[in-house]
Amino acid sequence: MIFTANIYVSLKPTVSDPQGATVSGALSQLGFDSVKNVRVGKYITLEIDKPSKEEAESAVSNMCEQLLANTVIEDYKFEFQ
Amino acid sequence: MIFTANIYVSLKPTVSDPQGATVSGALSQLGFDSVKNVRVGKYITLEIDKPSKEEAESAVSNMCEQLLANTVIEDYKFEFQ
Repeated sequence: MIFTANIYVSLKPTVSDPQGATVSGALSQLGFDSVKNVRVGKYITLEIDKPSKEEAESAVSNMCEQLLANTVIEDYKFEFQ
Repeated sequence: MIFTANIYVSLKPTVSDPQGATVSGALSQLGFDSVKNVRVGKYITLEIDKPSKEEAESAVSNMCEQLLANTVIEDYKFEFQ
């Protein structure tokens, strides 16, 4: 059975985010001056073929731990469509 | 009133995604061989101070059109927490 996973990887709140700061500055220059706390992360979608949702969840969790997120500085969450 | 927006920017389905292909290859090498169609996009969170949700939605939509997404090759969607 094929499951489609949406995975969200974001920097932990205590980690500085220079990319977010740059986007924030650019938005401000464009006139969007009521914006704060811009954080930029990754949004990964993939399809996984597993017999059950539990196995798919376990596999996606392992992928995040091993490759998709750097768990020292990043958090991840995922959901299935 | 402060709204927290989650913005998801992804390549359009017809656009080639080399980053996704690389991740797919790496997952395969790690033993995750039941994975297909990996696509990598951006996940942006920000806080916006507007009097109403409608105005916040309008502002975030404009931000996406003007800066956060390249609408020639990318789709975006957003939601408020």
